[in-house]
Amino acid sequence: MHETYRECYQSLVEKLEEKARLAGVMSIMHWDQEVTMPKGAWESRAKQMAALAGVIHEKSTAPEMGEWITKLMSSSKDVFSEFEWRNITEARRAYDMETKVPKSLVQELAELTSRAHEIWVNAREKNRFKDFAPSLKRLVKLRRQWAHCVDPHKSPYDVNIDESERGATVARLDPIFEKLKSDLIPLIKAIKESLYQPNTSFLKGDFAIDRQRKLAKRISRDMGFSFEHGRMDVSVHPFCGGGHPTDVRITTRYRTDNFVESLFGAIHEAGHGLYEQGRMQTGRDLPVSEPLTMGIHESQSLFWERMIAQSRSFCSHYLGLFAKTFPESMKVVSPEKFYEAVNVSHPSFIRVEADEVTYPMHVILRYEIEKGLFDDSIPVDRLPEIWNDKIEQYLGIRPPTDTLGVLQDVHWSGGSFGYFPSYTLGAIYACQFYNALKKEIPDAEDQVAQGHFLNIKDWLNRNIHSKGRLYETDELVLRVTGGPLDPELFVDYLKEKYRAIYRLN
Amino acid sequence: MHETYRECYQSLVEKLEEKARLAGVMSIMHWDQEVTMPKGAWESRAKQMAALAGVIHEKSTAPEMGEWITKLMSSSKDVFSEFEWRNITEARRAYDMETKVPKSLVQELAELTSRAHEIWVNAREKNRFKDFAPSLKRLVKLRRQWAHCVDPHKSPYDVNIDESERGATVARLDPIFEKLKSDLIPLIKAIKESLYQPNTSFLKGDFAIDRQRKLAKRISRDMGFSFEHGRMDVSVHPFCGGGHPTDVRITTRYRTDNFVESLFGAIHEAGHGLYEQGRMQTGRDLPVSEPLTMGIHESQSLFWERMIAQSRSFCSHYLGLFAKTFPESMKVVSPEKFYEAVNVSHPSFIRVEADEVTYPMHVILRYEIEKGLFDDSIPVDRLPEIWNDKIEQYLGIRPPTDTLGVLQDVHWSGGSFGYFPSYTLGAIYACQFYNALKKEIPDAEDQVAQGHFLNIKDWLNRNIHSKGRLYETDELVLRVTGGPLDPELFVDYLKEKYRAIYRLN
Repeated sequence: MHETYRECYQSLVEKLEEKARLAGVMSIMHWDQEVTMPKGAWESRAKQMAALAGVIHEKSTAPEMGEWITKLMSSSKDVFSEFEWRNITEARRAYDMETKVPKSLVQELAELTSRAHEIWVNAREKNRFKDFAPSLKRLVKLRRQWAHCVDPHKSPYDVNIDESERGATVARLDPIFEKLKSDLIPLIKAIKESLYQPNTSFLKGDFAIDRQRKLAKRISRDMGFSFEHGRMDVSVHPFCGGGHPTDVRITTRYRTDNFVESLFGAIHEAGHGLYEQGRMQTGRDLPVSEPLTMGIHESQSLFWERMIAQSRSFCSHYLGLFAKTFPESMKVVSPEKFYEAVNVSHPSFIRVEADEVTYPMHVILRYEIEKGLFDDSIPVDRLPEIWNDKIEQYLGIRPPTDTLGVLQDVHWSGGSFGYFPSYTLGAIYACQFYNALKKEIPDAEDQVAQGHFLNIKDWLNRNIHSKGRLYETDELVLRVTGGPLDPELFVDYLKEKYRAIYRLN
Repeated sequence: MHETYRECYQSLVEKLEEKARLAGVMSIMHWDQEVTMPKGAWESRAKQMAALAGVIHEKSTAPEMGEWITKLMSSSKDVFSEFEWRNITEARRAYDMETKVPKSLVQELAELTSRAHEIWVNAREKNRFKDFAPSLKRLVKLRRQWAHCVDPHKSPYDVNIDESERGATVARLDPIFEKLKSDLIPLIKAIKESLYQPNTSFLKGDFAIDRQRKLAKRISRDMGFSFEHGRMDVSVHPFCGGGHPTDVRITTRYRTDNFVESLFGAIHEAGHGLYEQGRMQTGRDLPVSEPLTMGIHESQSLFWERMIAQSRSFCSHYLGLFAKTFPESMKVVSPEKFYEAVNVSHPSFIRVEADEVTYPMHVILRYEIEKGLFDDSIPVDRLPEIWNDKIEQYLGIRPPTDTLGVLQDVHWSGGSFGYFPSYTLGAIYACQFYNALKKEIPDAEDQVAQGHFLNIKDWLNRNIHSKGRLYETDELVLRVTGGPLDPELFVDYLKEKYRAIYRLN
């Protein structure tokens, strides 16, 4: 009997590897499209991507795959190692996702999102929410149907959340976000009203792009990002892609008037890149080795961007290099002033430009609206008003246009709901991981001040990256930090840091 | 009945398009591997390419594809347009090639060539032909078996030739190559012994790579190569790739001590690129639109490199730009001196570095050896000696090592035999096409002298590129030039040009 289970597992492994390799090809094609493809190739490329997506779908939904999975899951779990068992359960999850939704609904969603994206781009440009509203209504309706197919026993919004952040639910997120609101809204207000506001004038200047590129590569390399197994390029929207842990491609964009923004963007993506490069050494074409959730992925980018790069010790270590690279702007700045300037916090309309204190409010606002859209307590037509009211309530500012408000994000036009919470879960995890690191490496801050990141990178590799999907999120967090998901720690970190910067009592 | 044929044709078209799109993906992955892939990704990439190749093979050999083709070919030809009929016959040819060879032989060849490549690289490096000889023997044997599977009624070498140059056979090539030998061997000798030898000293210098890159892009653009639908990058071995006529990617390599070589290399690849970009507007994912043969493809690159770029008018038009770009080396050179220098001819050991007079002898030598390997008149072990004897007989020089002789080309280690003749057929076609062009556009040379290439490019687009595979090679050549393949014209062109340059009475 074992003999047959093993053969069956081996067959499954081969199919999963084939699928992962084709997905790797897809991912390189995606990178190529954003970074190197000639503009005039978009139409032929769309057809090539569709052909490849079709093949991957065929492979993912092959009936024998379903039969093997069912057979394997009927076996006793102790026939398999933890590693093997997780491959089987991950295969089950992916197979269900791919097969439970009827093809007609998949196609309807694909067509609608493709059209809705166009409509959203125009609506945003013309500041006309009304143009986008009908698409949004339809998208919510279809994503509710989609959720019902995936799991009819759960609430549709929970199923949507679960897609990017498995295990997260409204029941778990509500108290976390209420906690953040009750602590951060007063903090944001106090920061805004503080008489002391850091000087940021020296962050503006004229920064040559080739120097910025050198800086971004140098610091990514210092962090441990391998250019033997990766690249750094330019794209309109920065992302971390690539086809394999040995081929990780991060992108950034450069502005000539502000080098800090693109540098921290590059560090953020390099953080994602380290997660990919640090995946377990065996089974790299199997699901068990894949990054766990969007939230954990984001925790890695935010760990490096916020906990490391926006720290005093990092600023003090690299200020010399910055001053050498851009003497005109940076020569006269002190480490403390630089640290304050890169940590400045102020309410703004646009999520992607928000700082770490105000960012959670952007996420919570979207979460509350999505929840309302899915339980019908918020009608689409009232969205602009509700959006603006909430922003005013949370940040004390009111968007003058929908372009700067409800129309700013690409997510909904792509039919993506329930994705936003991951950003803030990532920030909370990052903070918890950093605390755990400091317990194990008490002089971590000194090491950063020396520009030594190897121990920190190794710690992340060992405790998080190489664990892949061996554990569910809660178990991983418990193993790494000794406790559960804890917004308290995150709030305390923010309060302490920003009270000091803004001289609040 | 027609109704069913049409439906059947439509099904075939969809499968052919899917196959072409996946092949386009493969081609972008190949480009990526040569140009952008991080070095450390080679192992994962090999697996991704194998997975994709497997999918393409599955699609290409699907039994329903064979059934449709058989059904369609049993119909009356006049049910279909010429365009449609050619899609069907091309599909037949490809399907046969893919299915007639048993999988075991395909795998044996794949394994052997993969190992043989390694062995060849080492043998070449160490100048040890003996190390490579056993692989070569085995490769000839397997490619003979392969040929027998593809067409048991033809001689095995003819089947190998036909793969890259359909319609070409030993019976047709022998007299052409004898003609070239009888005329070119004396010409090469006379050039070598001429008292007048052009001065080439000014071609050596120190040429900044960014300037070379600008020059190569500028001239490709002048030729009509579209950067909206293409790119130009750097790779170790220059090639023309990309995934579609709207996504054509040429590469070149730069040396700082000689800009002419890389420039002419870029023009050569841009000539290939124009063929790809100029493919017919409809059915671009169907076989009828594909470039016809290797020889015709090569005719397009050589047309631009030799007939256009190595002409007096081209040299005179661009010399000003060259002098402006590289004043130190080029300022004092006259157009006539520059023309002579870029057309200098002298026997050399390495094929890829050969000029247009000596190049055919390198090809003929290989052709004669391959013929002998396949009909058993030449034993592998005697190859170095035979190679060196022939080079001495044809070019008057004798390779001091096998690295500079029989071990120089990659082709055989990849199991590729019968490919070399295409290079020289391409040169002959290029010459014939250029003659035809001059009849239709009598002031073509003046246009080149003005830097106006649009009419020439359009003529090639109209007469060759957009014809795809609508006609067999002989018919295409007849339509374009009014006559058959004609080595006489090529020989006359070489004689006239080089007698003038070398002052041979």
